[in-house]
Amino acid sequence: MSAAARDPPLAQEDLLLAAAYVYDAQYNRNIPFETSPQAVRLYYLYNHWTMQAATYFFIFVDLFLAVFEDPAVYPFPFLATSLVEVLCLLVFFSRLVHFAKVTPRNVFWKDTKNICIMIAILVTLIDLIIYGALKISNINSIRWSRFLRPIFLINFAESRQIRRVFRSIRNTLPEITYVFLLFMFSVLMFSLMALKLFGDRNLRTVEGSPYFTNYLEIVFDLYVLVTTANSPDVMMPAFDFSWWYSLFFITYVVINTYLFMSVFLAVVYNNYRKHLKNEIRKLAYMKRHKMIEAFNILKVKEGTEYVVQEAQWKELVKLVAPDISTSHRELLLRVSDEEQKGYVDKKSFVRLADLLNIQVIAMRIQTHPLEHWMPHVYNSAVSLFIRSMVQHKGFVWTYDVIILINAVFIALDEENPLISYAEWVFLSLYILEILLKVYTYEPRAFFAKTQFWNWFDTSIIIAALIATILNASLKSASQYNSQQVLDIVFILRVLRLIRIVDSIQRFRVIMNTLINIVPTMLTFGGLALVVYYMFAIIGMELFQGKIQFFPRNSTAHHALECGNPALKDSLFARAKYCKNNFNDITSSFVVLMELTVVNQWHVLANGFALVTHQAAKLYFIAFHIVVVIMIINILIAFILEAFFVEYSLEKSEVETAIERKIQELGVGIQEEELRDGKLIDNMETSENDLGGEEITKKKSKGLMFKIASKRYRTVDALLQRMFEAEILPEDDGPSVEEILNLSPTDLYPKNPTFDSAA
Amino acid sequence: MSAAARDPPLAQEDLLLAAAYVYDAQYNRNIPFETSPQAVRLYYLYNHWTMQAATYFFIFVDLFLAVFEDPAVYPFPFLATSLVEVLCLLVFFSRLVHFAKVTPRNVFWKDTKNICIMIAILVTLIDLIIYGALKISNINSIRWSRFLRPIFLINFAESRQIRRVFRSIRNTLPEITYVFLLFMFSVLMFSLMALKLFGDRNLRTVEGSPYFTNYLEIVFDLYVLVTTANSPDVMMPAFDFSWWYSLFFITYVVINTYLFMSVFLAVVYNNYRKHLKNEIRKLAYMKRHKMIEAFNILKVKEGTEYVVQEAQWKELVKLVAPDISTSHRELLLRVSDEEQKGYVDKKSFVRLADLLNIQVIAMRIQTHPLEHWMPHVYNSAVSLFIRSMVQHKGFVWTYDVIILINAVFIALDEENPLISYAEWVFLSLYILEILLKVYTYEPRAFFAKTQFWNWFDTSIIIAALIATILNASLKSASQYNSQQVLDIVFILRVLRLIRIVDSIQRFRVIMNTLINIVPTMLTFGGLALVVYYMFAIIGMELFQGKIQFFPRNSTAHHALECGNPALKDSLFARAKYCKNNFNDITSSFVVLMELTVVNQWHVLANGFALVTHQAAKLYFIAFHIVVVIMIINILIAFILEAFFVEYSLEKSEVETAIERKIQELGVGIQEEELRDGKLIDNMETSENDLGGEEITKKKSKGLMFKIASKRYRTVDALLQRMFEAEILPEDDGPSVEEILNLSPTDLYPKNPTFDSAA
Repeated sequence: MSAAARDPPLAQEDLLLAAAYVYDAQYNRNIPFETSPQAVRLYYLYNHWTMQAATYFFIFVDLFLAVFEDPAVYPFPFLATSLVEVLCLLVFFSRLVHFAKVTPRNVFWKDTKNICIMIAILVTLIDLIIYGALKISNINSIRWSRFLRPIFLINFAESRQIRRVFRSIRNTLPEITYVFLLFMFSVLMFSLMALKLFGDRNLRTVEGSPYFTNYLEIVFDLYVLVTTANSPDVMMPAFDFSWWYSLFFITYVVINTYLFMSVFLAVVYNNYRKHLKNEIRKLAYMKRHKMIEAFNILKVKEGTEYVVQEAQWKELVKLVAPDISTSHRELLLRVSDEEQKGYVDKKSFVRLADLLNIQVIAMRIQTHPLEHWMPHVYNSAVSLFIRSMVQHKGFVWTYDVIILINAVFIALDEENPLISYAEWVFLSLYILEILLKVYTYEPRAFFAKTQFWNWFDTSIIIAALIATILNASLKSASQYNSQQVLDIVFILRVLRLIRIVDSIQRFRVIMNTLINIVPTMLTFGGLALVVYYMFAIIGMELFQGKIQFFPRNSTAHHALECGNPALKDSLFARAKYCKNNFNDITSSFVVLMELTVVNQWHVLANGFALVTHQAAKLYFIAFHIVVVIMIINILIAFILEAFFVEYSLEKSEVETAIERKIQELGVGIQEEELRDGKLIDNMETSENDLGGEEITKKKSKGLMFKIASKRYRTVDALLQRMFEAEILPEDDGPSVEEILNLSPTDLYPKNPTFDSAA
Repeated sequence: MSAAARDPPLAQEDLLLAAAYVYDAQYNRNIPFETSPQAVRLYYLYNHWTMQAATYFFIFVDLFLAVFEDPAVYPFPFLATSLVEVLCLLVFFSRLVHFAKVTPRNVFWKDTKNICIMIAILVTLIDLIIYGALKISNINSIRWSRFLRPIFLINFAESRQIRRVFRSIRNTLPEITYVFLLFMFSVLMFSLMALKLFGDRNLRTVEGSPYFTNYLEIVFDLYVLVTTANSPDVMMPAFDFSWWYSLFFITYVVINTYLFMSVFLAVVYNNYRKHLKNEIRKLAYMKRHKMIEAFNILKVKEGTEYVVQEAQWKELVKLVAPDISTSHRELLLRVSDEEQKGYVDKKSFVRLADLLNIQVIAMRIQTHPLEHWMPHVYNSAVSLFIRSMVQHKGFVWTYDVIILINAVFIALDEENPLISYAEWVFLSLYILEILLKVYTYEPRAFFAKTQFWNWFDTSIIIAALIATILNASLKSASQYNSQQVLDIVFILRVLRLIRIVDSIQRFRVIMNTLINIVPTMLTFGGLALVVYYMFAIIGMELFQGKIQFFPRNSTAHHALECGNPALKDSLFARAKYCKNNFNDITSSFVVLMELTVVNQWHVLANGFALVTHQAAKLYFIAFHIVVVIMIINILIAFILEAFFVEYSLEKSEVETAIERKIQELGVGIQEEELRDGKLIDNMETSENDLGGEEITKKKSKGLMFKIASKRYRTVDALLQRMFEAEILPEDDGPSVEEILNLSPTDLYPKNPTFDSAA
């Protein structure tokens, strides 16, 4: 149990291992102390999805408090926010206590994650008390512990992915630091050269200030040039003076922007790959280890080898996956016990977690409900004609043309009543399309989990219908459009057009790769949230209230200088950036986003430096280093890796085995089934030709099996399979201690292919 | 000979094959018609470095003509430039004729490269005649064939690398086109949404013009936003209106800037890797094929196997590499004929090209010249003390401190006479350092080819000395500093400081990787030159003279509007971008560089659109697509790949064999040699600990061998070795036809490791 508790995800192998203990316990065989049925039930409860969802809910409530705390978007009294915060802390604490219950004591206390959470809870409580006490005595202090809130997001066991990225960043730091120092050395050298070359020329910038005379300012200007934000302005005075000086800046940009920034990407990417590979290897070995542990609990001697009896195997699967059908379980058994010997050997048992992970969809060959209720009407000549029409390629093309015409109408003027009537026509056409499709195809198949585009279409159309009706009724009631509803109507109308992408096969392939990246992007979103949140909290403490936004026609004092005379004649005020401030958390996030995009960040940095102190620039430089040099490069590494894994995607061994078995069992398919099969094939053309997908069917007591699309897999799962394909089935892998201490440079097992590939 | 002529580089295997024919011819054995000694000599001549250098020289002269042609930096009469151009064309033509002589006719005419060159020559001549004729009749026309000049750079056989990049681009095009279309679809959809959301709001931009009311302008603005050049300005009016609208722009940037731009990189990089791998595989097989062909010419039967006799082998090596020493040749023979049987078998013969490629430096253990001339003085107590002092670590540290102090002095004011005297002190200190080092270490070893930093230091110091003396004498003669000389002095002074990087081991490693990238970067430079040149020629025809630059205090009409009233109140004029014009080739290159850096490119595009036509924006968008989306991504792919190859660098098999042999032969090194060895080790500490390098020595008749540093290798060579290590020595590879038609998806031989690695 100790290994399972160390890093508790809801993985199949953990459940299997736990279930093996439960099963074992029920039959009163050798029960170790710490795996009493009660402990296992607690463990199950800990891993239940409701508990995990609740934890996430409170983590986000805690983070979201910043919206209501001073400086607030919607100000709430301190008492309210602090009570909610205490509630969150209580939830975190009880979650931690629960975790301690299902974990051996020494493992729990060795884990830095738990220590981190405890310290964060304690520190937050202390800060709350101090701040509250000072507030009562009317002294304003800083709620500095808000800075620590993302710690809960990182350190709860569920955020394994985000933690891995942070580990990867930590591992990359030494190497990136040396490259960064070399890069800074280069910037400093070029600045020195610039000072000597241009300092005595009496040149002036566009604003009329002296050009390149102060060393520190030159360093800042050239650092900004690395980010390209002040190109070509920073070059123009020198370039105007002499053509030759442009060579200085071109050399600078080539070395520092192109060369060094690419080197940063290379270093980050290389480390990301190296550590990802190592983590995947650990996971794969850990899985194998747990499966062998489960096998050892259940094994009985059969002839010369140890095996798991069929009855026990079935009990186990029922415990772990109570909602899969009997026939699905039969299928899995047939795959695990190919020769139908009545037991499962070690090699097949170890694959069980993977088998359970494969989404084998058991589909009943269902007749259309209408055919069931009124077969006469549904199979009439008219109905058959409609159905064949809908299945025809021309149907798709017709609707593509309709979408294009719709696009033109959207671009035209809204005020013309004819055009606003046309909108109703298009909406009805789209609704008609969905109704026809549902009429033709089996509705349960049409709205199957994997039918992404059907779901997308239908929800967009329904939302558009509701919004349009709402808008129309508001208009007739109050004679004017509700702006919010209208905005939503506009967006939905345009989103409807996206569907045209799905009709062109090449686009579909790219779209599927992009959709595949989404889970990885969510991890990245978590990472970005943590960093943004911390910088936003600091930014608000540093800059809140320094810059004010006034509406266009405001007559307030210094309205044009964002309410701060220090900004008079600054680029910041002239570009009307007043709304880019740190006066609440939403504005802070927008400003940080702008800083991430990099362009004009020096204008923002200079603006905030003017209203506070020149040292404020350090905040912006720090943000640039952390976010643009580290985080964005990790994002690019994410996407590159996801793409390359997609490209080198091969069917995994386990999957092939189950497919083969489905095919084997399905020998002798009837003519009539083929027709049904064709129907489903036709309906799913959008998936069929995606290369990575397989649809296989098997009639067995009216059931068809189909391996769910590979679309929604994560890069991790793919990499893990690539690696597992290389561990020999007989290989038991290293011990738990060895697994946990694996480093990227260890070659265990000697595995050149995987190492060079990932 | 046909295979060798197809793609004639100066590779060892080609020379070996040709030499085998020559050798064969000398001994009057079976000579095929087309490989008469004369043909071979012509082939040698064709591949001689002077011929290649001459070709390159004229290619660059041809390209350089743009500096003197109208619109010129230095105007020359049309007659002069056209005569030079005709001369270049003549050279190109004769080079082509020469190539035709050494190539079988059918191969020559099948090669599109040759057809391209011929057409380009013909078209240029026609254009020259038409332009000249029109000029005589005083009609100004366009010299449109100048656009074709880079064709010569690409298509001459020598530019294999650049051609490969172009092939790679061509192969990537279909895939990138689909991604690009999807990306444009996304931009168009977002623009439609923006039109509906913001078009009716009566918002105004900072300049006071209507905000987001014209669909085409929105598309352009949002395209610019993808490049981040107008962020956050394009968002500010909507953001000022409502906080929620910032979500529109954030979503847009995340999808189109981060996601799509990363996907472009992924597609380009993936294709680059795939095709690079395929080309490398072709090269490796072709090399093997040629070596087997050479072997078959020279082979004689010895017992049961065919071999090459030692005498013939030696003759061959002498022919191919006339300048390597006898002892080096002996060493190679000992590696090739390990058991000293008097002949070389096929397996060893095939490796000969690689053996010759390894730079084995034969070093005589030389005594210091001073020791030779005056041993008494050189070995006196004072001299020994100086020598041990220089070899001491403290010597390096002392000079690091001096460099740091020097840096501070450079930053200080130049006018102070004390400081300008200090410059002389530093200069003498640096000269003293070099003298001391040359005194202590053997001068020929100190200035060996691989001693990059020694060469760098010495040349910088000597140049600085000359420039400083020149400056001082000019100053005393004419009482003022010559600005040009002073600029050079400044630059040299700062460059001197770079040396400090070499004293810190971590920096040295990174620097060496960067230096390794240089050859690859040169290929990239060639590619950039081709694209820039074509765009510059088009840009000059479109925009020359439309925008004028006037010095700061000019009183010319419309000086503030760059001489063009259309630019009144434009951002272009306000930012003082007048010097960013297409009035000559150098200005064009600077503008194109600014467009590559991307920032403010929309200001440039809008400026040129104002003085010509809105359609001019298409030129800038085309440049962005070609250069930033394609070329820059290829550059990043270059650098990433170079880094990853560096990371996975392993010693190749051949190299290890020769090293082992050197070591074997060097058994029994004397105490005294060890000291000498240590001396060289010490002197070369800057190389010793670089991981990828090996210094091995062997005393044999006063000679030491040393495998040259791996520093200066290209990515290609490394990849080729990685691949070759996987071809079995017995494998003869596919036939020439098969080799030439290999596609990236062919698995020949089934070679998963290399495929997944590269």
